[in-house]
Formats: sequence, structure tokens, C-alpha cells
Amino acid sequence: DEVLSEDNIGECDALLIAINPKDTVEFLNSHAQMISRKTLVIDCCGTKRTVCAEGSRLAEKYGFTFVGGHPMAGTHKSGFSNSSGDMFIGAPMVLVPPVFDDIQLLDRVKKVLDPLGFGFLHVMTAEKHDSVVAFTSQLAHVVSNAYIKSPTAREHKGASAGSYKDLTRVAWLDPGMWADLFICNRDNLLRELDTIIASLGQYRDALEAEDFPALRELLREGKKAKEEVDGP
Amino acid sequence: DEVLSEDNIGECDALLIAINPKDTVEFLNSHAQMISRKTLVIDCCGTKRTVCAEGSRLAEKYGFTFVGGHPMAGTHKSGFSNSSGDMFIGAPMVLVPPVFDDIQLLDRVKKVLDPLGFGFLHVMTAEKHDSVVAFTSQLAHVVSNAYIKSPTAREHKGASAGSYKDLTRVAWLDPGMWADLFICNRDNLLRELDTIIASLGQYRDALEAEDFPALRELLREGKKAKEEVDGP
Repeated sequence: DEVLSEDNIGECDALLIAINPKDTVEFLNSHAQMISRKTLVIDCCGTKRTVCAEGSRLAEKYGFTFVGGHPMAGTHKSGFSNSSGDMFIGAPMVLVPPVFDDIQLLDRVKKVLDPLGFGFLHVMTAEKHDSVVAFTSQLAHVVSNAYIKSPTAREHKGASAGSYKDLTRVAWLDPGMWADLFICNRDNLLRELDTIIASLGQYRDALEAEDFPALRELLREGKKAKEEVDGP
Repeated sequence: DEVLSEDNIGECDALLIAINPKDTVEFLNSHAQMISRKTLVIDCCGTKRTVCAEGSRLAEKYGFTFVGGHPMAGTHKSGFSNSSGDMFIGAPMVLVPPVFDDIQLLDRVKKVLDPLGFGFLHVMTAEKHDSVVAFTSQLAHVVSNAYIKSPTAREHKGASAGSYKDLTRVAWLDPGMWADLFICNRDNLLRELDTIIASLGQYRDALEAEDFPALRELLREGKKAKEEVDGP
């Protein structure tokens, strides 16, 4: 119940670091030697490979325990003034432990996170996390941000419904934070961007050719994919 | 309070046609001569240029009144069994009248639509409607349908949040209906598809080049566009 400082950082049972990936790595490097061997350190970054590699390296060197974390919750608004006490209730929390068979460690993490009310703790590798998040979150933010740039956006008043609202909700974002996250996960996000650009090109070409059966088939495939992943 | 038939169609005060554009044009052509001069005909198609041109032509020829309509509501499910009595409450309704200065006509339309509880009636030209809807609705459906096709979609379980849900909600759609609507509005939707594909390519190139300032600037522009259109 005090402000964290270099004087008391060595007394923490748990340390949750909720800043950008670059800053997290910097913070860990400059503070690792002050962290006690009994401290559990969990980061909250949206990409995991870089941070977990550095966290694990420093944990091994200085003796504390490091577990990667990504609380998958939040709004399009950022900063402390937009935080809320119930933001994580029911939300998924991804955990990237240094080993996957240490039940005691996972139990310790669970106890620390318990008051936040996460709906489910998902344990996965940093590689898997970054691959999946490039699709579920990063691509969503790029597409939404690109979507709203159409000049037609300025004329739409009065002729839009739920689909417009959904597609453009996360267009309003923190540019610096997301640019940082994107570059941290460059390979995966490039793969997803190339995939959707190629896919959109297929609809575009079928439409240009006025090829009704091809267009219907492309839409049918997407409907089927959605149904297989999330149900009808 | 009877089923509409060729026997009673001539007695209707108002006739709302809620079928696909192609079928609407066909229905109007085969029934125009049975429609009374006192009947107000409103279609409910998602594209307006073709249907309104044909509706106006037949209205002039046979003496009834035709107004184009697009109730901007609904879910991703289609068919009569998915209809509901309160679907239109608060939703926008776009109207395309044959002339824009006939207050009595608009009042007549308003009275007919009143029981449905639309939130607002927007009067616009068929051209403007089709241009705007290509962006607010048709593009949203194509992008959502393309989005879910990434092979990563099948692995995402447990690592997704609101942005994924929003981006893929309308991926599940009626392929035949939408392919029909897209082809009816080919020029406008092609313009929007070309715009977003080019825009996504800019983020892609900045990311490939690991150009942080360029990526941040692209995101900042999108944030600004969203804010200007919908507020922060």
C-alpha cells in the first residue's frame, strides 16, 4: 500500500509490470538486481516473445521468478485515468510460464491474480501467444484504423448500423503503444496483413468480374469459417 | 390482415416489399398493373439505384406512388423465422422519394412507418445512399468475412477479446443475398475495397520496413479520422 520505489521493491511478494514492451524490458534491466528471490514478477505486455526472453534471462541471473502475462481486456482508451476496478472480471488472462509442468508455480500465480477476477487463465508459449494475438487483436486494430480512413466515412451520417460501429470501434487507439506492439510482433502481423489483403483481393476481383457464383462462394467460405470457429 | 394475393393487392393503402433487389424488380414488374393509384409502395432493399429507377418508372406508368426505403437494422441472421417485432425500434430508415420537396408525401410515408418505431427517417438520393452503404455496411461484411478466413482463426481459443468479436461478428451472413447486393452496387463497393486494400498496404509496408514513426503516423491519422467522424 505504498508507492513502489527502489527502496521497497525488494520487499514485494509479487510485482506486476503494466507498461509498454520496450519500457518493461528497460525497467526489468534496471531493477532486476534489486528484486528479491522470493518475488513473483508478472508483466502485462501485449506481445510476449521479447519480454519473456528478457524476463526469463534476468530471473535466472538474479533468482526471482518471472511469468509472462497478457490480460486480454481493456477499452480503446488508455492511461491510468481510464482504468477501472472491474476491468478484468471475466476476462481471459494469458500466462507464459518459464516451464509448463510446475503446478506449484501456476498455483502461486493463480493466488496472486485471484482478486482481479479473471474468467480464465490460459497457459501457452510466447510463440503461440504472439501468433494468435497478431490475428485476434493487432490485425483488428490495423483493419479498424484503416477502415475509417475512407473518404466516405465523412458522409455516412444517418446511414449506418451495427456493422459500421463494430468495424470501426477500435480505430481510436494509442498510436505509439500499438506501433510499438506491432513492431515487436512484426513477423506474425505481416503474415496476417498479407493474408487479409490477399483475401480481400479475391472478393475484389470476383466483384469486378461481376462473377456472382464466385462472390457467393467466397462469402460462403467465410460464413463456414466463422461457424466452425464460433458457432452460428 | 390477410395474406397478400393478386386478388387483394389492388386494395392496399401501403405495400412494403422486403425481398432481394432482383426479386423486388421482378415482383414490381409482374404486379405493377394490379397496384391501385392510391397505394404507397416502399421497397426495403439494401441498394437503391436499380430498384428506385425501376420503381419510379413503373409508378409513373401505372399511377401508384413509389418511395425507396432501406431500414438499417437487422442481425446477421436472415429469414422470416429470425424476424422480431421490435427490430426497427430506434433504427435509422433511409428514404429515397421520387421528389424531395413533397412534404405531403413524406408525411404520408411517416404515418405508414410510424408503428415500426424507427429512430430517424433520413431522406437522400439513391446515389448517395448506395455510395454511403458501400462503406458502412457492404465493406463491413466483406472485411469481416475475409478476416475470419485466416488459418490462425482456428487456433485462437482463449486468446481473444472484444476487438476480435467485433471484427468478425457479421462474417456469418447470407452469401446469396449479399453477393446480389454487392453486384447491384459494384462501382461503389469496388471503390471502397480498393481504398482499404491500398490503406492496409501502407501499414504493411511501414511494418515491413520497421518504420516506427511511419506506423505511428498511419495509426494517428486513423485515430484522428475516427474522432472527427464519431467523436473520441
